[in-house]
Amino acid sequence: MRLWLFGLYGIVATTAVAGERAIKKGLSDKTGLVTELEQFKGLEKYSPLDFDRFGGHEIRSLDSNLYEELFKHWEENFHFDYRILKALKEDLEEIKAKKGTALNCGEGVLQELKPIQSLENDGLTLEQIVEKLEKDLLEFCDEDTVAIDVASTEPVLPYDDEVHGSLEGFEKAIKENKKDKISSSMIYAYVSLKNKIPFGNFTPGVGSSIPALKELAQKTGTPHAGNDGKTGETLVKTTLAPMFSYRNLKVLGWMGYNILGDLDGKVLSHEQNKESKIVSKDKVIGKILGYYPYTITEINYFPSLKDNKTAFNFIHYQGFLGAKMKLYFIWDAIDAIVAAPLVLDIARFLNFAKKKNQKGVIKELAFFFKSPMETEVYNTHEQFEMLVNWYNSLK
Amino acid sequence: MRLWLFGLYGIVATTAVAGERAIKKGLSDKTGLVTELEQFKGLEKYSPLDFDRFGGHEIRSLDSNLYEELFKHWEENFHFDYRILKALKEDLEEIKAKKGTALNCGEGVLQELKPIQSLENDGLTLEQIVEKLEKDLLEFCDEDTVAIDVASTEPVLPYDDEVHGSLEGFEKAIKENKKDKISSSMIYAYVSLKNKIPFGNFTPGVGSSIPALKELAQKTGTPHAGNDGKTGETLVKTTLAPMFSYRNLKVLGWMGYNILGDLDGKVLSHEQNKESKIVSKDKVIGKILGYYPYTITEINYFPSLKDNKTAFNFIHYQGFLGAKMKLYFIWDAIDAIVAAPLVLDIARFLNFAKKKNQKGVIKELAFFFKSPMETEVYNTHEQFEMLVNWYNSLK
Amino acid sequence: MRLWLFGLYGIVATTAVAGERAIKKGLSDKTGLVTELEQFKGLEKYSPLDFDRFGGHEIRSLDSNLYEELFKHWEENFHFDYRILKALKEDLEEIKAKKGTALNCGEGVLQELKPIQSLENDGLTLEQIVEKLEKDLLEFCDEDTVAIDVASTEPVLPYDDEVHGSLEGFEKAIKENKKDKISSSMIYAYVSLKNKIPFGNFTPGVGSSIPALKELAQKTGTPHAGNDGKTGETLVKTTLAPMFSYRNLKVLGWMGYNILGDLDGKVLSHEQNKESKIVSKDKVIGKILGYYPYTITEINYFPSLKDNKTAFNFIHYQGFLGAKMKLYFIWDAIDAIVAAPLVLDIARFLNFAKKKNQKGVIKELAFFFKSPMETEVYNTHEQFEMLVNWYNSLK
Amino acid sequence: MRLWLFGLYGIVATTAVAGERAIKKGLSDKTGLVTELEQFKGLEKYSPLDFDRFGGHEIRSLDSNLYEELFKHWEENFHFDYRILKALKEDLEEIKAKKGTALNCGEGVLQELKPIQSLENDGLTLEQIVEKLEKDLLEFCDEDTVAIDVASTEPVLPYDDEVHGSLEGFEKAIKENKKDKISSSMIYAYVSLKNKIPFGNFTPGVGSSIPALKELAQKTGTPHAGNDGKTGETLVKTTLAPMFSYRNLKVLGWMGYNILGDLDGKVLSHEQNKESKIVSKDKVIGKILGYYPYTITEINYFPSLKDNKTAFNFIHYQGFLGAKMKLYFIWDAIDAIVAAPLVLDIARFLNFAKKKNQKGVIKELAFFFKSPMETEVYNTHEQFEMLVNWYNSLK
Repeated sequence: MRLWLFGLYGIVATTAVAGERAIKKGLSDKTGLVTELEQFKGLEKYSPLDFDRFGGHEIRSLDSNLYEELFKHWEENFHFDYRILKALKEDLEEIKAKKGTALNCGEGVLQELKPIQSLENDGLTLEQIVEKLEKDLLEFCDEDTVAIDVASTEPVLPYDDEVHGSLEGFEKAIKENKKDKISSSMIYAYVSLKNKIPFGNFTPGVGSSIPALKELAQKTGTPHAGNDGKTGETLVKTTLAPMFSYRNLKVLGWMGYNILGDLDGKVLSHEQNKESKIVSKDKVIGKILGYYPYTITEINYFPSLKDNKTAFNFIHYQGFLGAKMKLYFIWDAIDAIVAAPLVLDIARFLNFAKKKNQKGVIKELAFFFKSPMETEVYNTHEQFEMLVNWYNSLK
Repeated sequence: MRLWLFGLYGIVATTAVAGERAIKKGLSDKTGLVTELEQFKGLEKYSPLDFDRFGGHEIRSLDSNLYEELFKHWEENFHFDYRILKALKEDLEEIKAKKGTALNCGEGVLQELKPIQSLENDGLTLEQIVEKLEKDLLEFCDEDTVAIDVASTEPVLPYDDEVHGSLEGFEKAIKENKKDKISSSMIYAYVSLKNKIPFGNFTPGVGSSIPALKELAQKTGTPHAGNDGKTGETLVKTTLAPMFSYRNLKVLGWMGYNILGDLDGKVLSHEQNKESKIVSKDKVIGKILGYYPYTITEINYFPSLKDNKTAFNFIHYQGFLGAKMKLYFIWDAIDAIVAAPLVLDIARFLNFAKKKNQKGVIKELAFFFKSPMETEVYNTHEQFEMLVNWYNSLK
Repeated sequence: MRLWLFGLYGIVATTAVAGERAIKKGLSDKTGLVTELEQFKGLEKYSPLDFDRFGGHEIRSLDSNLYEELFKHWEENFHFDYRILKALKEDLEEIKAKKGTALNCGEGVLQELKPIQSLENDGLTLEQIVEKLEKDLLEFCDEDTVAIDVASTEPVLPYDDEVHGSLEGFEKAIKENKKDKISSSMIYAYVSLKNKIPFGNFTPGVGSSIPALKELAQKTGTPHAGNDGKTGETLVKTTLAPMFSYRNLKVLGWMGYNILGDLDGKVLSHEQNKESKIVSKDKVIGKILGYYPYTITEINYFPSLKDNKTAFNFIHYQGFLGAKMKLYFIWDAIDAIVAAPLVLDIARFLNFAKKKNQKGVIKELAFFFKSPMETEVYNTHEQFEMLVNWYNSLK
Repeated sequence: MRLWLFGLYGIVATTAVAGERAIKKGLSDKTGLVTELEQFKGLEKYSPLDFDRFGGHEIRSLDSNLYEELFKHWEENFHFDYRILKALKEDLEEIKAKKGTALNCGEGVLQELKPIQSLENDGLTLEQIVEKLEKDLLEFCDEDTVAIDVASTEPVLPYDDEVHGSLEGFEKAIKENKKDKISSSMIYAYVSLKNKIPFGNFTPGVGSSIPALKELAQKTGTPHAGNDGKTGETLVKTTLAPMFSYRNLKVLGWMGYNILGDLDGKVLSHEQNKESKIVSKDKVIGKILGYYPYTITEINYFPSLKDNKTAFNFIHYQGFLGAKMKLYFIWDAIDAIVAAPLVLDIARFLNFAKKKNQKGVIKELAFFFKSPMETEVYNTHEQFEMLVNWYNSLK
């Protein structure tokens, strides 16, 4: 298999690649990989845990390489044993990003990653950008290639039915160079799906969720999934919330307060970028409970934490005879560590789906996302069952 | 329906009765009652939320009444609105307990509840105790009566195959007055099941879980369920633990530290009584994960909390690339408030089971228990599905 | 003693009055009263815990009385035993508020308390308002009367040296009816200090902190103190923060996230009103540490909590060899319960100060305030020592 | 200065040495060192942060060296940057321990550190042990040498006035080889004080706290201090507890639950060794509050945490009008990181004391200890003031 990552030099992508390489070299075990569970035995026949190439697009540090970029992340986080890092040096130095696009990725990304090196900054039109990205992808890919977007949170572009509502409209907008209507995550999804490369959207951005791109996926027979990796606080929320339903306990309010200090935190400190993330996190409680209690969902930048995302949750609920009671939880995790293996998992499942002739949205991958497409199943347990059943029905 | 409660003057029993009465008078809503969920619509045809009589056995304050005993609990806990309490005064004063048994219920109960008023203290033999308890039950019951044990935690009596292994052996031991082999929870289960009264064991004690009593339930065609109500910390544990499995995260250790200050807390401060509770709480993690991480499960007495049980849990787990991460939760609830509605729920489901000609262990009620009988399903979500499916298949 | 409270029907004022009355009747003990500590023995000679009259100004429910208003708060919070409430009914029904002012108290107060009944709404000029308030106060007071502002948080009015910089300017502005320059807390402070009634500012508003009013206090020889009662999270912060200094541990970041659901919470959900509170809470860390680490201080409305203020704090700090470590605390308290006794304490200390011929800002009362006037001592321990030393030097 | 450490290969000692060396090489800053605070300016003239030699006694791995032992700790804890570790390799390899004693250090130490290599295992009598230890110390020391005991927790030996009550009795017991009466921490204190080497007892053991050794310190004019380094939970407790006193809030109960997974945790999992630690931690609350509320103080082994000590504290308190409220804190720190700098601090202050002709117990060092000798000051703030005042009066 081969894996193309949009946002190759970010901490999630670099950690995912390092992890795969470390496992291959016997430096780390398979903990954290859903695809390596007993329930998915046999998957390795279709999608072995053995990626022969990694590549991707970036909008910064294009004269660098994956090792150097990972090293910068590592120095801030010490998120795994230094000796593993050293042992992977040569392997990872060979992996270099190609220049990508940052179109409409918001003030947050532009400010925090500057200087941005992007195709649009080189003066390319939308059509030329697409052409260039396709060229990169086609030079890289084989039959078993998957592309995943792990770039930073981008703001939600207002939906425009003319452009986003149909493939024809979308391709027309590209030809007409309507740069204000199309964001980088859409372009990445477009070039992937157009070339029959399964696409996973791990960021809260729009990605392949607009009708135009769903149409494209159907047309080319390509599977895709998203949006926004469910890695931490939302994972716990969607695991716990059903308990209140089962016991007929009334949730009066649910506070979720998140702090983190990495690039994602910086980007999210820009209101424009924060909004799409918050929306994605906030609605799950109501979807699971069947009613919308008072909720607070906030994300704030806390520099010293770096990638150590910490979430404080407080659930106020009412029980028998009107008594009010409380549940608190604190989630303290390295964001990249919980996210990275899911990137490999999604890639493997999407490749499996392709081989099993699944096309369009693979809603059964809801388990991996905060805002799963085309399903109302948000309960983590039901999502896991759905995934297992899907796998069993196809394998 | 009628409900007989072993341990009628305890905070769980008195709160359950008060809650049912408050709902009937429109003073409280149905929050906390599983049986009132949409999923169990239709249950009211078999087991309406409308108990016409409550009764039970006790080993203390036999000249008192349910209102007076509830008032004592309320003064320590203020666990619901005083105005509800006052409005129920007359109703609850009419409910009075009969003298029960405290056989082999451990030093904790004997010390903390003294002076104990029990049939054995009056010099009765086992056979006479059974006779007297049966008489009380038969005077009370109608066709729709259920009995539930909500007495304090009793120590585990060593299993003796001769006595506990068969109904014949058990009845022989009663005749021979072998008081050291039979505990109060066994006697209560025995008199209930013998008289075709469904029996629920809400305490961590042995209850109906020995082969002798399972045989009896089969013989008389009576449903029963247990053991040990899953009300708080264990409910959260068994809801959360599956998340780690689904994501292939390795639990390194799970600490559960519980403090409470009511009679249950006092009783559990006696080592002998604590043991059966700890065992019941401790094993669930391993059962769900499929391996046994290091666990700490402790319960300690903390007087000022009264019935406000507080649990501190810390989960240390390992993810991708060996990184160690942390999850903490704090459960802060009124124990009686989370337990009481389940007593009504179990009663209604057992009555439903009886009407549907179910007999023996109703393993599908696992959802309500820490140590469910005859099932390996400990995952709260699977238990809830199992309950819904069972109900749907019978209704 | 007599106590006049601006904001008489709020939960803090009503609870303070109820507490004093409950203690007098032997229904409650003196827990929570700083003035009753061993260290302040002898204070009762000057300021006995025995208030013969309570009165105050309000801007709502003027046809009600203190019992009715307290009952509304009690029904939402059950913050003390219902039986105490009932026993105080007659006493508290006699206490009725006079109409006050809501001048420049912000959108929050105006929206959440509407309909506002205020002297300005009756068309009175500033001069007439002052006259009317003075009349109320003078009818009420004796030699031992203190006035305390416990009204809701008001926004900070921009400082205008012409009006706020001197008593002359301030009185000129009153005469000229410059309503946009003067807020209700200033007016309350003005009428109190002008009439030699010691004034305490328990809210985050401006109160007596402007030069004009400090000048007035000096002129009339009246003691005053403020601002913003240090009751909960800030109390813990200013107790804990010194520990990091003493041990030369470097605070990397300090997050304080507060939720509450009462009127104060509603008012603070209006940005304009929130600001002065946040400023008051935020600066203490830097003042104590001597450097300004990254801090987050947020207050949010969480309706179901009512007056049960809950604060989540996370302290990220660095120790030896660069290691980063963590401390979390959760504060779960009834805001009125921690605030109310301090109102009585401040009143008693201000009365004591007056009798000892102290005038102007009593900076030694810093112990009671988030933003103490004319001192840089924010460390709770140093503040307590300062208070004890002050008392000992005067008594 | 030179520093002799009893328990040289433990994580506290190795981290202290590594820290000092890292600071000297400019690899780390001085964070965590109390002696480097502004308040102690001038101390460097007497006790510079510049140790020219480190040595110590050990009872294990005697063919190893400090680097190798530190590396083992580091591999379990990653408690500082690997690159610092590497840079110190040569320096630390030169530091080697001498064989010490494990007399009466309890089952915990014997089991967890086996095979023990000790002088008594070589068949030496008490007198010979003392002789050998003295020889090691005298070969090592210069005028500015301090000795600190950082060995594992040892059980409390029953006090025997004949042996422990006077120097004469103690020396007689040595001569008579009464091995059951004398523990290793006493011997270490004895050889230090006898040779005018200031002695600090950083463990919960007896050390120099018996009359016999206090007499010796007076006789030789040597300063000493102890017991049991106040590094984590107790530090927070003794910082926070005064707040409840100052505000006249009644602590109803205080729960402290500690988990850790290093050698100290293993040793403490042996009841015999745990006891002295618990006693040391438990009493501080009562000492500060002036009354003894219900307290729980527990320490448990939690292997995966290694040296990452985590403490859960819950404080239940009562305020005005009888309302019960709650405060929780979670302390999450690397034990060696918070302990190690204090070892250097205590050494520097003891050396300063010696130069200033202080002899006997330096009670002003209470700030560093859970069970300070000869003082009732447990409040962290008062302890810090006492330390600063002491320093200022002597410098």
